[in-house]
Amino acid sequence: MTERKKTTIVLFSGDYDKVMAAYIIANGAAAYDHEVTIFHTFWGLNALRKDEDIIADKSFIEKMFGKMMPRGANKLGLSKMHMAGIGPKMIKDVIKKHNALPLPQLIEMAQEQDIKLVACTMTMDLLGLKQEELLDNVELAGVAAYLGDAENGNVNLFI
Amino acid sequence: MTERKKTTIVLFSGDYDKVMAAYIIANGAAAYDHEVTIFHTFWGLNALRKDEDIIADKSFIEKMFGKMMPRGANKLGLSKMHMAGIGPKMIKDVIKKHNALPLPQLIEMAQEQDIKLVACTMTMDLLGLKQEELLDNVELAGVAAYLGDAENGNVNLFI
Amino acid sequence: MTERKKTTIVLFSGDYDKVMAAYIIANGAAAYDHEVTIFHTFWGLNALRKDEDIIADKSFIEKMFGKMMPRGANKLGLSKMHMAGIGPKMIKDVIKKHNALPLPQLIEMAQEQDIKLVACTMTMDLLGLKQEELLDNVELAGVAAYLGDAENGNVNLFI
Repeated sequence: MTERKKTTIVLFSGDYDKVMAAYIIANGAAAYDHEVTIFHTFWGLNALRKDEDIIADKSFIEKMFGKMMPRGANKLGLSKMHMAGIGPKMIKDVIKKHNALPLPQLIEMAQEQDIKLVACTMTMDLLGLKQEELLDNVELAGVAAYLGDAENGNVNLFI
Repeated sequence: MTERKKTTIVLFSGDYDKVMAAYIIANGAAAYDHEVTIFHTFWGLNALRKDEDIIADKSFIEKMFGKMMPRGANKLGLSKMHMAGIGPKMIKDVIKKHNALPLPQLIEMAQEQDIKLVACTMTMDLLGLKQEELLDNVELAGVAAYLGDAENGNVNLFI
Repeated sequence: MTERKKTTIVLFSGDYDKVMAAYIIANGAAAYDHEVTIFHTFWGLNALRKDEDIIADKSFIEKMFGKMMPRGANKLGLSKMHMAGIGPKMIKDVIKKHNALPLPQLIEMAQEQDIKLVACTMTMDLLGLKQEELLDNVELAGVAAYLGDAENGNVNLFI
């Protein structure tokens, strides 16, 4: 009996294009029967935010971070050619035109394929994000859990 | 008989400095007899563009992307200290002064060392890039081919 | 007897948040008894600079790079929401509030845990950085040494 291969991704970036690349690799790996974990840290947490305004008990600085950071996958900017929001619109248009999946659907597909979506507890604390602001079925864990997955991983990436 | 070690790089970035780092690691790994693949996706595809203007059959939005994105390795910007193009010039000056290889020669060396240069079909579609716009001897492939290489890789990086 | 696991990180970025992520993963891996190497290249070298002004014998262009690049971990900017320096101050405030470790202490901890801190000789040359400008106990090495560590690594990341 062979063991399942493992792919782990640290998703640090909150750019639409980079998050898209991460989820395309992750969904591909899951389709090839890899056990896949995406560990969302720093700006990568924004991809997991619900798009509604969640009332949470926050300090002033936490509220500021919450307001300034994009709320969910559909609101993320581009790493290049953002051009005040025209770039993301162009990318979304070509995605639609080519019948490719936009980011929110890539994340849904990841959940359907049982990809483990993890939110880094330490950076949630730092940025003042609360669990109720995140999508359902996201696990909270720290760097130790990430390393436990990654040290046996076949494909480990930092995106 | 020992198997050859494998290095695979996903080259997502189209910044001169990051592409340079990717090709230096790749050429080093090939010199140590690794089997090396660079999988160019998103802005990393720009490193593979020929620098002449190729007439290709494109939609309006594809033409716009084509115009806005840098045409080839020598036209890429820096990830830091770009300073309206002064940064890249400074970097190229110090490269010449230190007898190091500028990016176009690093890519040539990679081809001479039989490093497999792959262009991601899905992002070529999205950005409207055609095969005739890319350097010769570049393979086209999708995320499945990348994963096939990476799951047996010793060194897997996302740059 | 089992061999120690290995983690190697290429630290290309000089952004406060990315360098912090690199050192948190590295310190975590060392705590789990991994043999850890951080190979600092390009802007990642700035994290290793001493914060005083070191007189070194430099060309004009090397002096310019030296002036423009941040001098040490505490001076680095953010990859997102830098906002003319307000972002880094906010991050440092929340780090203090949550009793987390700021970057200079994360680097100290790495040195206490015997994490191997390496500075890339080729990019030191290109950017005109001299060994006396860097923290003590930093090794100088090239891409060959990195590959020697990475090809047996369990967790290899490019940050």
